[in-house]
Amino acid sequence: MSKLRIALAQINPTVGDLNGNVLKIKNFIEQARSFDSDIVVFPELSITGYPPEDLLHKSHFIDDNVTAALEVSKSTSSITAIYGFVEKENNQIYNSAAISSNNQFLGTQKKIYLPNYGVFDEKRYFSSGDSHTLINLKNSTVGINICEDIWYPNPTKNLASSGVSTILNINGSPFQIGKIAERKKLLIKRAQENQVNIAYVNMVGGQDELVFDGGSMFINFEGTIEVIGSQVTEELLIYDLYEQPTTQQNKSFNYSTNSIYINLDDNKKQKIDTPKSIQESDILEDQILQALLLGTKDYVEKTGFSKVLIALSGGIDSALVTAIDSLALGPENVRCVYLPSRFSSEASRSDANELCINLGIDINEISIEEIFSTFESTLFEDFKNTDWGIAEENLQSRIRGALVMALSNKFGYLVLTTGNKSEMAVGYATIYGDMAGGFAVIKDVPKTLVYKISNYINLKYEKNIIPQSIIQKEPTAELKFDQKDSDSLPPYEILDQILELYVEKDHSSNEIMNKGFDRKTINHIIQLVDKNEYKRRQSAPGIKITSKNFDRDRRMPLSNKYTN
Amino acid sequence: MSKLRIALAQINPTVGDLNGNVLKIKNFIEQARSFDSDIVVFPELSITGYPPEDLLHKSHFIDDNVTAALEVSKSTSSITAIYGFVEKENNQIYNSAAISSNNQFLGTQKKIYLPNYGVFDEKRYFSSGDSHTLINLKNSTVGINICEDIWYPNPTKNLASSGVSTILNINGSPFQIGKIAERKKLLIKRAQENQVNIAYVNMVGGQDELVFDGGSMFINFEGTIEVIGSQVTEELLIYDLYEQPTTQQNKSFNYSTNSIYINLDDNKKQKIDTPKSIQESDILEDQILQALLLGTKDYVEKTGFSKVLIALSGGIDSALVTAIDSLALGPENVRCVYLPSRFSSEASRSDANELCINLGIDINEISIEEIFSTFESTLFEDFKNTDWGIAEENLQSRIRGALVMALSNKFGYLVLTTGNKSEMAVGYATIYGDMAGGFAVIKDVPKTLVYKISNYINLKYEKNIIPQSIIQKEPTAELKFDQKDSDSLPPYEILDQILELYVEKDHSSNEIMNKGFDRKTINHIIQLVDKNEYKRRQSAPGIKITSKNFDRDRRMPLSNKYTN
Repeated sequence: MSKLRIALAQINPTVGDLNGNVLKIKNFIEQARSFDSDIVVFPELSITGYPPEDLLHKSHFIDDNVTAALEVSKSTSSITAIYGFVEKENNQIYNSAAISSNNQFLGTQKKIYLPNYGVFDEKRYFSSGDSHTLINLKNSTVGINICEDIWYPNPTKNLASSGVSTILNINGSPFQIGKIAERKKLLIKRAQENQVNIAYVNMVGGQDELVFDGGSMFINFEGTIEVIGSQVTEELLIYDLYEQPTTQQNKSFNYSTNSIYINLDDNKKQKIDTPKSIQESDILEDQILQALLLGTKDYVEKTGFSKVLIALSGGIDSALVTAIDSLALGPENVRCVYLPSRFSSEASRSDANELCINLGIDINEISIEEIFSTFESTLFEDFKNTDWGIAEENLQSRIRGALVMALSNKFGYLVLTTGNKSEMAVGYATIYGDMAGGFAVIKDVPKTLVYKISNYINLKYEKNIIPQSIIQKEPTAELKFDQKDSDSLPPYEILDQILELYVEKDHSSNEIMNKGFDRKTINHIIQLVDKNEYKRRQSAPGIKITSKNFDRDRRMPLSNKYTN
Repeated sequence: MSKLRIALAQINPTVGDLNGNVLKIKNFIEQARSFDSDIVVFPELSITGYPPEDLLHKSHFIDDNVTAALEVSKSTSSITAIYGFVEKENNQIYNSAAISSNNQFLGTQKKIYLPNYGVFDEKRYFSSGDSHTLINLKNSTVGINICEDIWYPNPTKNLASSGVSTILNINGSPFQIGKIAERKKLLIKRAQENQVNIAYVNMVGGQDELVFDGGSMFINFEGTIEVIGSQVTEELLIYDLYEQPTTQQNKSFNYSTNSIYINLDDNKKQKIDTPKSIQESDILEDQILQALLLGTKDYVEKTGFSKVLIALSGGIDSALVTAIDSLALGPENVRCVYLPSRFSSEASRSDANELCINLGIDINEISIEEIFSTFESTLFEDFKNTDWGIAEENLQSRIRGALVMALSNKFGYLVLTTGNKSEMAVGYATIYGDMAGGFAVIKDVPKTLVYKISNYINLKYEKNIIPQSIIQKEPTAELKFDQKDSDSLPPYEILDQILELYVEKDHSSNEIMNKGFDRKTINHIIQLVDKNEYKRRQSAPGIKITSKNFDRDRRMPLSNKYTN
């Protein structure tokens, strides 16, 4: 039985950066070759980055991507490379894997099942494949599944029954809570039920709201994870395949197949110490933190920024965002401003300062008082005989928004917003005020999880990065005297549970009530969620960590009379 | 040959307003019955409104919609009603037509072709039908096509070949420039090539970015439009069908069919003067103006507002938006503010005032000077040793944004933004400044078209509603001394042509250059369009009038290195 050496190239491509992605792929092919690999496997749409969205409507983009895929094929001397690209055939496009070997482009495998739910819109662009390509390489036959294809039973079953011993499954699969465990479970099941090895290759890195969380792995036909990659870094994982399942060919499937035969010299191979299965962190807070760090770093860098600006309030949300940014980008690339008003407490100032000292970040203070007073006098005539209220509260937040944007315009910072998912859900945020900024780091993190991750950061780094006083104080927007979040919202423990049922699980008010929550509270929250759709529509994108975020995942009408 | 009286109910449903939509449908059934109609046909998804988007992920919404569809069936004594609803079958949902008659729910027709391009996401939600329902009514056999189905040859061909003489085509088809003519052409072709009558029923009304533009019509089997409805108002169109084609049954098609037999008493019918074919306006500016009026009115009303606020600059864009709002909502529901700075000209003030006098709108003036000066002094330390520039320009716009939002929060106005498509494309707008507001009336109207529609309004209403001085002056943002749009942008005649090729037609820079434009200008514009994606992502929705708007129609990544 010949040894097949498989390299899993877990890379971080950038959407639209065809040249950069080609260079990266060539570099990883070169690395794989230097380890005498027979085959190197890259993620879904590695050439274009994923998801390319409406770039796919530009026919010249498709053509450029084909040119790039052909260019890569010319760097495959003595090795076989599998890499995702956009295939064009008869005026249709396909989400395909390119199969290149010995400097030749040999063929493709088209994706069969196109996800068109959640954040995915693949049926907007792609046609579906309906056949399998078998790759005969040394004494093995391998086949390819593209992402979604392995979540349905048939593609793997068909390949197994046509004699394939190893499935190369290439992915662009984003992080969400619980997904890492779910993937492993599914892949182990597929391997066992079909008696095939599975080489699962996922991309890594942030792309707008998504974080691709790697975890590429080789699972043998008995369902054992032999090797697994990191959640956050680019890696080349190499696995030597000795044992293969005894394949049982059963031609009773419906898909058509075509075969590619590849001759590769059996190079003298240096011994590789196959790494032990690296246990990814089972700590949920750590998985989430890693996703937030990577998502922030990549959004900032891939959009061409180097430095970020955060308005600190002295509260937990802006503290967590600052800690994440500092860990992701380095404290030298983070600047904070504290923008107090007549309603800001001395505790807020000292907490904001302490946080920055802990992280080694520059902070300066700009009072909004004079500006706010000038707004009040300017609006005096218009506002006379009205009660002080929401208009005046929001004005303070909008002054802060204008100040951070002025600093951004002047010095080139990317402004990061600090609202959490609970606030975004109920509209407890000021549009054009604290919502002003380019990226919303914790937009998909519910308030109760904000606390957990803050505590986890202090635990992980073994010091109080986020001051205990920030964690322990009662949440307040400080937009009027003695204001507390709890004045207008139920406790966050209750709020977050109801929000998960209403927003993520699409439960009705009755179903939520049947879980033991109070009818009046439920109705109040549902009303808030629904009437604040317009704010979310104009909000900055943020990192998806839950099963349903407020960006591509949830598409609600603004004019809508259904509220239940 | 028996006379079949068909009523086309061109209604304006509201998304999610199940009770309201049921009432409206019942009311139109009652009207149709009062005219002794045999059958009354409603638009696609009349029960839910269109598009319901992710409301379709709520299983209780689907159930409530089924209940509503059944309730309507109980109001069909002595008449047959066809109305769009969401059908649920084996855990799948379908975009279907309900067929009810004599107070019974008799069956459905499922939509076969699901649009999943442009603004449409139907494959996100619905499964496809694969069979035809034939309705035998008096001596006629009629069949149903749902919207997209008539744009493909097969469904109509199949129905015609199975003996159907009249196709009831129910639609949720939005306006865009040229669509009215395109629809007529297609429907005439379908009627002629299949020798069938077509009763085309479209909804009317605005829903967020979309305006459904009615134009329901009856086309006979020879391709003659016998009757056609308005672009903007609810209507019940009645047509008496005497002549029918001699159908040729040809069973060689692949779809399965099922048949419904309906007995209706042949009521003594009062004579109906079938209206002559009403010629819809062929004036493109009028079609666009009608769409903008209806889209504005419905967005304001369907989101629960009654009054709107506009910041007037004295320029053409805010003047056009104000004129549209005044025509759509009545001048008593429009309030304007003029917010001058040290850079505002006396001409801007007098132009803004003259516009408001012409329209009978209240305007008041609030200078931003003191606030701007206070911002400058507050930022003095941070900004020292820097050049006055974009930060200071944007600050003025953001002060205006904060002022209009303060008035909105205080008095409940919906703020309407005034940016046109050309500005949105190249980012010639201040995010959180003049982009602050809930609805962007002319967001999809290129600048050159802004002038045409402004002139058209003056022509149509036979007076200078929009002062000539506004139309004739050179465009300027007045954010610094002696600023002109032409300082940083090519002439709008050039800009708009390049934008149409790049944004709407997805042409590459080379293809645009081959049309005779200057390479440097093209590259500059493409760069501006691409780098301002983040602004558009946070912009208010606006009324779609072109083939590709900046809302659901165009989904571009923010992190993107491809610019061509």
